[in-house]
Amino acid sequence: LTVGIIVIGNEILSGKVADTNSAFLARELRVVGADLRRVVVIPDEVGEIETAVRDFRDRFDVVITSGGIGPTHDDVTVLGVATALGRRKVTHAGIEQGLRRVCGAALTPAHLKMAEIPEGAELVAGEDGAFPIIKVENVYLLPGIPQILERKFQELKPRFSGAPFHLKTVYSAKGESAIAQYLDSTLDKFPDLLLGSYPKIGDPSYMVKVTLESRDQAYVEAAFAHFVGLLPEGTVVRTEG
Amino acid sequence: LTVGIIVIGNEILSGKVADTNSAFLARELRVVGADLRRVVVIPDEVGEIETAVRDFRDRFDVVITSGGIGPTHDDVTVLGVATALGRRKVTHAGIEQGLRRVCGAALTPAHLKMAEIPEGAELVAGEDGAFPIIKVENVYLLPGIPQILERKFQELKPRFSGAPFHLKTVYSAKGESAIAQYLDSTLDKFPDLLLGSYPKIGDPSYMVKVTLESRDQAYVEAAFAHFVGLLPEGTVVRTEG
Repeated sequence: LTVGIIVIGNEILSGKVADTNSAFLARELRVVGADLRRVVVIPDEVGEIETAVRDFRDRFDVVITSGGIGPTHDDVTVLGVATALGRRKVTHAGIEQGLRRVCGAALTPAHLKMAEIPEGAELVAGEDGAFPIIKVENVYLLPGIPQILERKFQELKPRFSGAPFHLKTVYSAKGESAIAQYLDSTLDKFPDLLLGSYPKIGDPSYMVKVTLESRDQAYVEAAFAHFVGLLPEGTVVRTEG
Repeated sequence: LTVGIIVIGNEILSGKVADTNSAFLARELRVVGADLRRVVVIPDEVGEIETAVRDFRDRFDVVITSGGIGPTHDDVTVLGVATALGRRKVTHAGIEQGLRRVCGAALTPAHLKMAEIPEGAELVAGEDGAFPIIKVENVYLLPGIPQILERKFQELKPRFSGAPFHLKTVYSAKGESAIAQYLDSTLDKFPDLLLGSYPKIGDPSYMVKVTLESRDQAYVEAAFAHFVGLLPEGTVVRTEG
């Protein structure tokens, strides 16, 4: 199951807010075995959203958008997604009812904007009227506020399950240039291994963190044994997994 | 000056490491007045890098890549950029000399990989051999390690200067739905205003942070006065800027 994330928000591109939603989703998707292939951050502009959604929905099995679904002028995600998918923007009767129930006399036209959906979208979480989440075709529209996105994603998570990855980690006392040849020869022997090499600055305990991953546990165990066997004495600080 | 950032790294998409480089660059670029228009995070794959660079270099004045320029198998940014720009990958004599001087007898073929550049690239920082930074056409290749990227960007920053933005902020005690009409009418009167509305959960002191920005200081001052004048008594908690 491949996934692409579209983060929508001028506040991120202008450096006012650091996006934490994509890192949260990356971790969660990895745990359930989904394959996050791309993240893009774009402005709150209908044309930008339209272009990104059209590109992503063909390229990935699932698309998740984050942001731009509130009641104000800069919340244009529903319109952008609707335009991308060639659908009209319509009002969802159930969401409207929920908003009227929750807001009562305090209801404003701005509230009702939050009941707008691309025609044909389905409600996939928040059926009680509190922060409804919709899906249209393969696109899930999540909010930008981290606390709400994180809570809502827990409801949706079972939809994204794939075969989980098995991870083993080796911390090296030697730098990348010193161990590069052992990484290369491990990949030659285990070409399907997901092998990462991450130098660390400022940690006296190790210089490089090497990650070995596969959906096949026996394969990653064999690659791990091979790689560790190649490393000269004194290289391995510790291992995990 | 429009800017696009391409973050390259499986470790980010797989949730092992949270990208901090794009948030750092977003803040720094904003301070010097450059206009960051898009960030994309892609895997360490030549084809993905090629596609992203080809797209971004036409779309933006400046492209910054982060990651994938070290000595190991998963460092394929130079090849990806070279391929995108229809250039060969060649060895930069000056960088090679620097590496030989710094590494001495400990030099490995992996070290020499770091002297590879897309043909015609120029050295723009690190001429002393310590973490050289190259630029080819409108593409700057920065490292993925945050400490080095942050240090090197300071050397490059003057290249990205534009007219700075002027920012004023209003913290609202009322929610987005209650102030949406005043945001809309402010935008009607000041259509060139960059107006952001960011609800906050869990902060007892305010409900929404509203940001007003423009490169024209008088314009943002006038818009600010107009907006604050519209808000009902008791709405403004405090202002900044």
